[in-house]
Amino acid sequence: MEETFHMVPVGVIRREGESASVEIHEKFVEGLPGLEEFSHLHVLCWFHESDSKVKRATLRVHPRGDRNNPITGVFATRSPRRPNPLALYTSRIHAIRDNRIEIDSIDALDGTPVIDIKPYIPESDSISGATVPGWVRRNRESSAP
Amino acid sequence: MEETFHMVPVGVIRREGESASVEIHEKFVEGLPGLEEFSHLHVLCWFHESDSKVKRATLRVHPRGDRNNPITGVFATRSPRRPNPLALYTSRIHAIRDNRIEIDSIDALDGTPVIDIKPYIPESDSISGATVPGWVRRNRESSAP
Repeated sequence: MEETFHMVPVGVIRREGESASVEIHEKFVEGLPGLEEFSHLHVLCWFHESDSKVKRATLRVHPRGDRNNPITGVFATRSPRRPNPLALYTSRIHAIRDNRIEIDSIDALDGTPVIDIKPYIPESDSISGATVPGWVRRNRESSAP
Repeated sequence: MEETFHMVPVGVIRREGESASVEIHEKFVEGLPGLEEFSHLHVLCWFHESDSKVKRATLRVHPRGDRNNPITGVFATRSPRRPNPLALYTSRIHAIRDNRIEIDSIDALDGTPVIDIKPYIPESDSISGATVPGWVRRNRESSAP
């Protein structure tokens, strides 16, 4: 049998209009103290709507489902279709109240399970001068306001 | 029964002396094309040596096991002891040869399972001016060469 690892949801994404928060489940709230001293965090989510055999067997996509983007290996994209449908977001921490971390608006659906949060540490997480291919730059321009 | 999510290893960390690589398992190699156009990537690993009931029940630690660092919630640290022992690394891509991504040296043990890789996209991943608490700054200074 193939080796697998088991993860438990530690929280959930909540969206209301323009505001968003990470709601940590009560049994994990004790893991929060100290996070308020950081300005930003990583939020790791489980793309639960992509947790199907077919989507997890997908290894090539047109990024963002846009046929103008070249067929690309999923590991070179942030597509939810991938062997383990993990999402990685980076966001500003606006406030932490009880079990809710108020963050910037986030691209994840309301109700998306959260599997981990980590502090953003510029020394290891912030890369200046990282480069990306043309299709990423073009997508950015086309989605600019 | 508590909800759980299942992940499969897609690769493994290989370290030899000062060099390191991510070796992608053959069945997932088709997901790589396009990654060579990025300068940096995120590597998500499973801290397999922390995948125990006791370690996964840990919600407070002295970061880096150093009693000079204040007791902190695990979600405010990068400790391997956490409910889901996920590790997040960011690294330069030196070269991709077949199923091997040659990267900068990495803090993970040889043989650590890799569960996902993602391209580093500065627009969303690089935060300028992110701030951290004093204990993180002090740790950085004390580990400087």
